[in-house]
Amino acid sequence: MADVGSVGAVTRFDTVSFLTDYGTADEFVGVVKSVIRDISPHVGVVDLTHEIPPFDVRAGGLALARCIGYVPSGVVLGVVDPGVGTARRAVAIEVAGGAGVIVGPDNGLLAPAVAMAGGAELAVELTNPAYRLEAAGATFAGRDVFGPAAAHICNGVELSELGPEIDPVLLLPGTVPLSRLEGDELIADVLWVDRFGNAQLNIGPDDLPPTWGTHLQLRIGSPTDPTGMSARRAEQVSHFAALTGGAVGLVLDSYGMLAVAMDQRSAAQELGLVAGDQVTIIDLGEDPGVETPVAFGRR
Amino acid sequence: MADVGSVGAVTRFDTVSFLTDYGTADEFVGVVKSVIRDISPHVGVVDLTHEIPPFDVRAGGLALARCIGYVPSGVVLGVVDPGVGTARRAVAIEVAGGAGVIVGPDNGLLAPAVAMAGGAELAVELTNPAYRLEAAGATFAGRDVFGPAAAHICNGVELSELGPEIDPVLLLPGTVPLSRLEGDELIADVLWVDRFGNAQLNIGPDDLPPTWGTHLQLRIGSPTDPTGMSARRAEQVSHFAALTGGAVGLVLDSYGMLAVAMDQRSAAQELGLVAGDQVTIIDLGEDPGVETPVAFGRR
Amino acid sequence: MADVGSVGAVTRFDTVSFLTDYGTADEFVGVVKSVIRDISPHVGVVDLTHEIPPFDVRAGGLALARCIGYVPSGVVLGVVDPGVGTARRAVAIEVAGGAGVIVGPDNGLLAPAVAMAGGAELAVELTNPAYRLEAAGATFAGRDVFGPAAAHICNGVELSELGPEIDPVLLLPGTVPLSRLEGDELIADVLWVDRFGNAQLNIGPDDLPPTWGTHLQLRIGSPTDPTGMSARRAEQVSHFAALTGGAVGLVLDSYGMLAVAMDQRSAAQELGLVAGDQVTIIDLGEDPGVETPVAFGRR
Repeated sequence: MADVGSVGAVTRFDTVSFLTDYGTADEFVGVVKSVIRDISPHVGVVDLTHEIPPFDVRAGGLALARCIGYVPSGVVLGVVDPGVGTARRAVAIEVAGGAGVIVGPDNGLLAPAVAMAGGAELAVELTNPAYRLEAAGATFAGRDVFGPAAAHICNGVELSELGPEIDPVLLLPGTVPLSRLEGDELIADVLWVDRFGNAQLNIGPDDLPPTWGTHLQLRIGSPTDPTGMSARRAEQVSHFAALTGGAVGLVLDSYGMLAVAMDQRSAAQELGLVAGDQVTIIDLGEDPGVETPVAFGRR
Repeated sequence: MADVGSVGAVTRFDTVSFLTDYGTADEFVGVVKSVIRDISPHVGVVDLTHEIPPFDVRAGGLALARCIGYVPSGVVLGVVDPGVGTARRAVAIEVAGGAGVIVGPDNGLLAPAVAMAGGAELAVELTNPAYRLEAAGATFAGRDVFGPAAAHICNGVELSELGPEIDPVLLLPGTVPLSRLEGDELIADVLWVDRFGNAQLNIGPDDLPPTWGTHLQLRIGSPTDPTGMSARRAEQVSHFAALTGGAVGLVLDSYGMLAVAMDQRSAAQELGLVAGDQVTIIDLGEDPGVETPVAFGRR
Repeated sequence: MADVGSVGAVTRFDTVSFLTDYGTADEFVGVVKSVIRDISPHVGVVDLTHEIPPFDVRAGGLALARCIGYVPSGVVLGVVDPGVGTARRAVAIEVAGGAGVIVGPDNGLLAPAVAMAGGAELAVELTNPAYRLEAAGATFAGRDVFGPAAAHICNGVELSELGPEIDPVLLLPGTVPLSRLEGDELIADVLWVDRFGNAQLNIGPDDLPPTWGTHLQLRIGSPTDPTGMSARRAEQVSHFAALTGGAVGLVLDSYGMLAVAMDQRSAAQELGLVAGDQVTIIDLGEDPGVETPVAFGRR
């Protein structure tokens, strides 16, 4: 009864998962969602977050990567787009055997999520004007390019209709820093500080040497400028409430990474941590005792 | 034609009303909504607010209580959960003859809303791993425990399948301060300061003695430290715009409570009020005249 | 099969596009959406923005006007309502041959959007108590008056049932400042500063005299107080990234207006611009060269 291919008759996806740096003080997010609803009324949009710091492609890419394992089958729409209006490509990338299509600018934003989803299987550049909105200015690609593409893909429009295929290996990679073990020191980076002040590091429990115990020391600041460094004892624990009396901990977070945390307080504020900071971790061996002061250079 | 009981065939609820202290800067809210949509695609999630101050169980409980009379039949999902990962129970509580199920941590957060809805009729602890998501860390119960439970309940899963029944009288009560009349003084507390600076008190119009007029005095600050106290005349009026010329009023708010308010200005900022502050109210008798200065100790 | 007129059988609209100054820290927005969902479960609400500055009718009106060309057919619900509880009228206004109904207070908020949609074709005052919620206090018209009206209109209730018809010419107009050419100077106003610091002016490209080039000067501040004025060279360009090395530009924005902008930086912050400020634009003629310092009074 339904004509395969006709918009609204047989649709492909019901969900657009949506992340931007648009904020919510302006109507940008609302207008993109209006455009999607106008083209594809059956679709539900799930807002992941719109509070990525303006132009922060790296933070947006990490947030998308944290989400990708939980979003329903459908389109993932990510827009952090400092190069809007330039030659940077607008792309749609099929992943997971067609269970998902990731749409956004080809500036590294989508790369971590694409990798988490198993890699790009097909990619196209969004050039077909038939699937864009005409607009006076070229500064709002979320409304004019990405949102319409997401909606049309949900409606069942083939990726090949949206524009020419591009080689997935030519997509711009994201840059996620890697931790490294140097002698007795594990050098990690802060990937993300959340609302509660937990500072997620780029290490999981398996990155700690197996001989290490649960009593650790964190050194924060630049090794090349020791005057600015501080050190703090930290315990490896399984949940925040195990950190009593203002103790700092390394807690296995909900994404399987280790986070510097405190109980009902902001560890990031207490330790002065922001995304991008380096944290050096050292094993303190057997329990040095609760009375032992922790000072720089100890051990 | 539809198999009763099969997920998606006959469902129980279409709505999850959702409140947290997660904020929207991170993707926490979006991930919980993704999980709900993945398990229960027919459900619409209505965000009540996600800006409860971090860990503020009392503020979250009051906000849920203000909402409960307006949410559609369905699941109410509340997550303000400083004890996440500890032995505090995760619960689902049936209310209103089965018209609603309130899901969240058993830490007092849900109690005011449960009471407003007529009390708990059935409660279970959410322990069945079949209705949880497996996760690396135990810090994101909204995603791994509460969200999935809400979705499965909407799908028609019986509460008894989610975990063992618990006696409703053993649920942790909430703590809402009571006002009290001491001689000629009505001693009230600020429950909530809203975006517009209106400071809702824990009194309704019937808590004012019937002999009192509309000309009142508010004393703010601690009675045990009179140096920090200030006094301000306030008129009892029906709407903000009746408060001209910078006057302070007691306005019957939209929840039937009295709020300290000004017209198009923040009374909370003007008077230095925050949630939890005490406000003592005194009747000024017949109209003392607009010229009369209001000073502490007047009467 | 369906009874025409019975709620839920034949409905009129599926979408409410929603804008307020409620913020999201309180549950106001969530409660209005709960009320709409309770009355009209088939409706999807698209949040345009709820971060209009409190009581700022002008900013809300401009935001609604920017959205109106993109919202799906349905109800547009706008609530910035400093006069709540007073005699200001609550109205519903039909536009675009019945494709849209705009609901809100008659205080100028809706006027720019109504004009953009082609003008009011029918207007009623929302007085019928059968389509309101009863409430203790009169301070939350979004919940008690506007939200219910929006939902009932979606359900197919005739506007004439909501209250008496009013003459559209008696609706309060909005006030949008007009630019003006005075001699060689184009005097414009800042309509809006967005999250990225772009300052939209009340001029489009056609408002610049055709003899002008792309090298312009912006004078900011009051002409009557020259001591507070500053001047800055600005290039007219098509996208942000063309503004290299900290240059300021006039960029054709996504709404067809000219905006003072910089590349990946806040022009508003750099130039000290806020909504309502005046910006005087002067043609610099042929390219004065990148080395030429720009000083007040140059030319």
